[in-house]
Parts: sequence; C-alpha cells; structure tokens
Amino acid sequence: MSAVAQPREKREISIDTAPPVNVVQTVKDVREALALPRSSGSVIGLVPTMGALHPGHEALIGGARRECGIVVVSIFVNPLQFGPNEDYARYPRTLEKDVEICRRQGTDVVFNPSPDEMYPLPPLTFAEVTRVSEHLCGKFRPGHFRGVATVVLKLFNIVRPDRAYFGEKDMQQLAVIRRMVADLNIPVEIAAVPTVREPDGLAISSRNQHLNSAERKAAPVLYRALEEAVKRIRSGERDASKVREAAIAILESEPLVRIEYLEIVDPTEIQPLSTISGPVRIAAAVWIGGTRLIDNVAV
Amino acid sequence: MSAVAQPREKREISIDTAPPVNVVQTVKDVREALALPRSSGSVIGLVPTMGALHPGHEALIGGARRECGIVVVSIFVNPLQFGPNEDYARYPRTLEKDVEICRRQGTDVVFNPSPDEMYPLPPLTFAEVTRVSEHLCGKFRPGHFRGVATVVLKLFNIVRPDRAYFGEKDMQQLAVIRRMVADLNIPVEIAAVPTVREPDGLAISSRNQHLNSAERKAAPVLYRALEEAVKRIRSGERDASKVREAAIAILESEPLVRIEYLEIVDPTEIQPLSTISGPVRIAAAVWIGGTRLIDNVAV
Repeated sequence: MSAVAQPREKREISIDTAPPVNVVQTVKDVREALALPRSSGSVIGLVPTMGALHPGHEALIGGARRECGIVVVSIFVNPLQFGPNEDYARYPRTLEKDVEICRRQGTDVVFNPSPDEMYPLPPLTFAEVTRVSEHLCGKFRPGHFRGVATVVLKLFNIVRPDRAYFGEKDMQQLAVIRRMVADLNIPVEIAAVPTVREPDGLAISSRNQHLNSAERKAAPVLYRALEEAVKRIRSGERDASKVREAAIAILESEPLVRIEYLEIVDPTEIQPLSTISGPVRIAAAVWIGGTRLIDNVAV
Repeated sequence: MSAVAQPREKREISIDTAPPVNVVQTVKDVREALALPRSSGSVIGLVPTMGALHPGHEALIGGARRECGIVVVSIFVNPLQFGPNEDYARYPRTLEKDVEICRRQGTDVVFNPSPDEMYPLPPLTFAEVTRVSEHLCGKFRPGHFRGVATVVLKLFNIVRPDRAYFGEKDMQQLAVIRRMVADLNIPVEIAAVPTVREPDGLAISSRNQHLNSAERKAAPVLYRALEEAVKRIRSGERDASKVREAAIAILESEPLVRIEYLEIVDPTEIQPLSTISGPVRIAAAVWIGGTRLIDNVAV
C-alpha cells in the first residue's frame, strides 16, 4: 500500500511546494519587492504580458525561471497600444487564473498595476521607434508600437530587469524592442522565445478564444500559408513576389479568411524585400470573423 | 616669515589636492567606472552638458558635489538636438579647459563620448515629450526637444544616476525632462539649479562668447525686459497681453535685438496664459546679430 501511495504523495508535494506568488499593484511595491534581491546580486528576469496567460506565456516564464534568480511577470492590458476601434475593452482579463499559472511556473513577483497606477498623469511622453514600426502591424495599427515601446520602457524603468522575455510570435514587437534597447542604451538583455503552436500549427494567442468552432477550424491556414512560403524559398525561389503569391493563394483558399498583409521582410528593420538573399521573416495578419490573428516564420 | 608663508602654502595645497578626473570616452568605460561606487551604495549625480563650461555649469557641478558621493559630468555636443540650419558645427568645443573646470569643481568622472559612440547605429528611437515641447523654443526649433529628451534618456540609461542636475536657464528643457522622468517612471531625481548671471543681469551661456562688444553691451536688455514683466505682475497686472506688451517695448528699445518670442507660461506644461492667476514663467528668445539668446524668470 505504501509503495502505491508514495508517488501520489510525492506528486502532491511537488505541486504544493510551489511557493505563493507575491502579487503587487504599485510601482513602489514592486520596487520594494526587488530591492533586496537586486542588492544581493540576483539576476532579475521580466516577462511583460497583458495577462490571459497561455502556453506561449508559460514558455516565456519558463525561460526566465531557468535563467534568472528572480522572475517578475507583469500583467497589464495597456490602453496606450490599442487604437480607438480596437479590442481594448473586450481583451480577455483572467487575473486569478493568470496568477495561478504564474505560481505553477515559479514566478516570484506578479506586477498587476491599474491603468491609473501606470498613467497617473495624461501620458505626454512616448518612445517612438521609427522605420522598424513602419510596415506590417505598424501600418495597420497606427500608434500601436508607440504604445508598446512606451509601456515596455516604463516597465523596464520600474522593474530594472537584467533580462526581459518576449515571444517570437510578436516578431515586429520584438524587433521594435530590440532596436529601442540598442538605441537608448537600456541595460537589459532581450531574450526571444519561440512561438508555441497547437498540434494543427495554429500559433497560441490570447485572441484565439474569440474564434467560434468553424473559425477555429479555418485558422491553421495561416501557418500553412507561411510554411508554403518557407518551402518555396527552400526550393530556391528568390523572387519575393512569387513566394508571396504562393502563400496568399493558400490563404485565399479559405473563405473565412480576410488577408490584412503577408510580407517577406528582413529580420532587423522589418523592411519588405523584393529579392530574398539572406535570412528573412515571413509575416502575415489575417481576420477570421471579428478576430485578428498574426503569425510569422523565419527562413 | 613662516607666519606669512603658511596661508599661501595652504591655498596652494587646497588647489593641488583636487584629485585628477577620470575622463572616459565609452559607454563601457563609464559603466565600469561607476560599478564599484554603485554597488557600495554611493549616490551618483549626473550633470549633462555640451561642454564649453562656464559658471552656470560650475553651479550645477557644485550642487552635485555637495549632494552626491560620485559626480559624473557628461560632455557631448549632441547632433540630434540641432536643426539642419543651426549652430552644431560652430558650437564651442573646449575640452581641455572643460576637464580642468570639472577637476577644480571636484568631478569624479567626465564622460566625453564621440558621436559614433553615442549613435553607433542610425538613431531610429526617439523620446517625444508632447505638449510641454509645443511652444517657446519647441515652436522655433522643431525636433530640438526630441533630440534633448532622447540624449538625456540615453545618458540616464548609461550612467543610471540617482540625481541629475539641470539649469533653470533652460526652463523648457527642464520641464520636458521632468515630465519625461514622471511619464516614463525613470528612477532619477531632477535637481534644478538657478540661473547664474553676469553683474549686468545677462544670463551666462556658452553662446555669449559669439557676441561682439556692441552686441554684448545690448544683451542685458533681455533680462531687463523680463524684470519689467515681473514688476508689472507684482504691481497687480493680471492680463498677460499687457505684461507682454510692456516687456516687448523694452526689447524693441534696443535696435540690435530681434525678438523670436516672449511668452508668459505655466511652469509645468509650458502653455501660454492669457490671465495670470498662479505661478508663471516669463520666457523669451531673442537674436542679437547671429546669436540666439534665451532667458526666463519666475513669478
């Protein structure tokens, strides 16, 4: 009997010993929570999120957990990065579940400020990353990357992390942050974490939960189109317009999909290319019903 | 004899014991120079300058020296804050003299980077402080405060000071920096240092050396005009346009002066006022020959 009971007990113990998370709401409290670990030389890792945590975020937190002494997850749905006609109000907010996920992943501190805590004054100061934010999502979401860069800069100044973790799924965001860090001499190392996908290829996203079952069934066409582009390039195609045409044809085969963009860009400044001669990213945004999905792959 | 010699000796010793300054050119070197004092808890003070140091800068360095454990003076003529038709090329550069002034004022580290060290890549990221930079110099020098805010943000990220010192003479710059620090949660305290003036009232500025003797003789009219405005407000005048008229009449009495602006603004967001009902700043910019001078006073 005891031989059977033991593994169950062990498993329960390993779940229960994940320590509680310190959830703080204010800039002052998160700084105070980090003062001692910082002064004793702990490497501080930051995972900035908008909550609605999923396995993609778990990969970010897991990376931070492996590489840092202290893991901070920020959960803040940043109004500054949503356009007036975008989904700020309906963006999913699942704090209790998020904190539990953070706890299981070994997070030390969750920073969950209110909009008033982050913007006590009307925000007049903005970080603008020109050029890198010009195309792709930047073109279709004016002001989006300005809002992202500004809130990330604020989080960097609040948390002062040694390392910060971003997902490759938001590839243009990653390029914007990397360039901001380089241009502004921000003393933080940016870690990129590969996109986590469903078994059918769909990139995991907080917005996937808005898809109804027909839309969900259609959604993997986005990744299939990107994979088609990869295949063409690997077969030797160097003409970006031909690669795009092949990928777009796949997307157009799915009647529920409306294409916003599909581009082949350089991985650093995110400029559309006409000829493929080095490493590239293929990125696309589509609408499926009322839900906007993005994805990208590297070649 | 020895009683006479002693005070001279003492004076010489007090000059000679000002230790040498550590002059560094790279981001890496300034960070390394500050690593030990920072980890041992020293308060780090930064005085950002464009060199051509004068008694106004000495007051900034003196303030830092009194209040901080480590004083860093940056000397960098920042191309990003000069417009295409402005005086970047002819801005005075007097490094050797500047370093000697820093040494005498008790500076620990002079950070004197090259433009390539500060901008190794074409700068794509900018800090924009809207509204506060809209009027006064911001109106006549488009992009100027964007360049100032961006380089100051870089210097803050490089030096990570606890306190940073700015002169009240550049009052709009001070308001821009203060708002940037508040909006972006930058963990630095901003210290404002009063304007240093010549005996005839002219605010000391690196650009004063461009004035010929007739222009130099005319220049104090700027401060006299601002003092006239102060007098009118103190006498009970609440109509800003009447106060402006009186001050502008003083400026117009001097044929060598061309007025760029003279405004009465609130001290925080630097918005022009029509009625005076609380603390204000009166600020003006004039051209005397080819030299642009600014000044301001508080009421």
